[in-house]
Amino acid sequence: MSPPEPIAVLGGGTIGCGWAAVFSAAGHPTTVIDPDPAAAGRLSETWRSALPVLKRLKRSVAEPLPPRHVTSPSVLPAPPAFVVEALPERIELKRSALAELEAAIPAETIIVTSSSGLSVSELQEGMAHPERLVLGHPCNPPYLMPTVEIGGGDRTDPAAIDQAAALFEGLGKVVLRVRREVPGHLVNRLQAALWREAVHMAREGVASVADIERAVTDGLGARWSVIGPTTIFHLAGGSAGLPKFLDDLGGEVERWWDSLGDPRLDEHTRKILIDGMRDAAAGRSPAEIARHRDTAMLAVLDCLDDLSTQQAEPQN
Amino acid sequence: MSPPEPIAVLGGGTIGCGWAAVFSAAGHPTTVIDPDPAAAGRLSETWRSALPVLKRLKRSVAEPLPPRHVTSPSVLPAPPAFVVEALPERIELKRSALAELEAAIPAETIIVTSSSGLSVSELQEGMAHPERLVLGHPCNPPYLMPTVEIGGGDRTDPAAIDQAAALFEGLGKVVLRVRREVPGHLVNRLQAALWREAVHMAREGVASVADIERAVTDGLGARWSVIGPTTIFHLAGGSAGLPKFLDDLGGEVERWWDSLGDPRLDEHTRKILIDGMRDAAAGRSPAEIARHRDTAMLAVLDCLDDLSTQQAEPQN
Repeated sequence: MSPPEPIAVLGGGTIGCGWAAVFSAAGHPTTVIDPDPAAAGRLSETWRSALPVLKRLKRSVAEPLPPRHVTSPSVLPAPPAFVVEALPERIELKRSALAELEAAIPAETIIVTSSSGLSVSELQEGMAHPERLVLGHPCNPPYLMPTVEIGGGDRTDPAAIDQAAALFEGLGKVVLRVRREVPGHLVNRLQAALWREAVHMAREGVASVADIERAVTDGLGARWSVIGPTTIFHLAGGSAGLPKFLDDLGGEVERWWDSLGDPRLDEHTRKILIDGMRDAAAGRSPAEIARHRDTAMLAVLDCLDDLSTQQAEPQN
Repeated sequence: MSPPEPIAVLGGGTIGCGWAAVFSAAGHPTTVIDPDPAAAGRLSETWRSALPVLKRLKRSVAEPLPPRHVTSPSVLPAPPAFVVEALPERIELKRSALAELEAAIPAETIIVTSSSGLSVSELQEGMAHPERLVLGHPCNPPYLMPTVEIGGGDRTDPAAIDQAAALFEGLGKVVLRVRREVPGHLVNRLQAALWREAVHMAREGVASVADIERAVTDGLGARWSVIGPTTIFHLAGGSAGLPKFLDDLGGEVERWWDSLGDPRLDEHTRKILIDGMRDAAAGRSPAEIARHRDTAMLAVLDCLDDLSTQQAEPQN
């Protein structure tokens, strides 16, 4: 194996610092580019939080070097093999930073964008070498969440997509291939679809926000962490699998679909959600809930990681 | 505390036998009513699978007695404090069994229906004492999954709903209050909403079924097992919480909502799902996947149980 390649990360916000920690822990010499001098502090702070997580998830070399910070792509310490772009979701900002970046790196260096809202095709407009721009969207924080959504825009070279996929697979990431550009990619669309019905039911008084939250955490989340939504119905069909489920219960599912809501986030809905969330939080601040989330998710992901390792090992 | 009350379960299928195991393990003298003599065998088999799970989840008394089987409500060994109805989802079958049951038990005994498709109000038509019929819908299997959806129909006595809620809370269940009758209650509607978009994306070629499954198992499930969908956005708003999220990103979420699909389970869609599920299963039979699901879900639920115990304990 060749030594891990140098990586540059464009943007020292939450996602950029998180990505830098992932690459650094895996042994890649990693540099974050951000004109803001305060980015150096955010980077150290993220590294301190992320490294114990990455070690527990067995995603760290024995003695990783922390990521470095520079203020401009023109002063990178080494030509990067890949650049990960993790700037705020503003088209002009991204376009001008990409132009400055392209002037400083070789024409063939692949650029992976973490964009969640802007499409790769939009970002490619005006690029000198649009064929190298690839989607690589993580869940937040990138050092904890396993998935990366990989895809291209209208002008992306398919070989660049494969190379980016190989980079992330090498980090132990679960690569999801997005084959057509759609708003929200895969994960955010699925999340939005579920939340739309959660909002609908809260708005219509079917249940409290707190009980809808529990329907997800205690009713659906654990199962979905183990098997996906189509697999659930495949198993509901018994030994005959999905075809039998579709024969027996496809009509019932369509009946549910037809009764799902299409709410708007208007003032009335906002008030129900905000009041309901206050009740659901039961006095805990966002920071307290976030601490619980971080502890609990690490425990669950560690448990799932152990299970998939067991599953992958030969059974005697 | 009074000793656990006698419970009768109407119907010795998967759900009925599962419920019987939950009540028996908790120390309730439990009898399953099913005219089919083969129900006794299913009951013993479920008891053997369920008891180790219930012990691991700390939902069993030290020396529980197994549930009994009788073929008719007229030969129950003791008047039950509650009856749990878990018959197949056929209206005529449920109505005639409820009539036979009502003739054999006191007028005030609460009947809890596990119905997922038929509404409580529909089942109340023709009952001698409709005010005692309460919804109590579990996720399957009831001895593993924490939630029970509790609610009433047009003619349910609110006090009966509260008594049923107290019974299930006493078993350590997470009670979700369904305040208006809607197809699929809470959990199945949320599941259907997510699956609709999964089907849409598979149908439109946005991603493979296998990658959509992984978007849920590796991208969303672990987080949803820890915090619900509205809490996720509450935390995304930082210290200002949900109002800030709605101000900053509510419009983006509405844009995603407007792009979600509304597929039908027609022949073309069925073929894509069935072929995609075959690829996703990668040669594993439904039974093999189900074994993985059972092992992994028990591990995850046990981990979550430990975390919520830790959270409930005072922090020093």
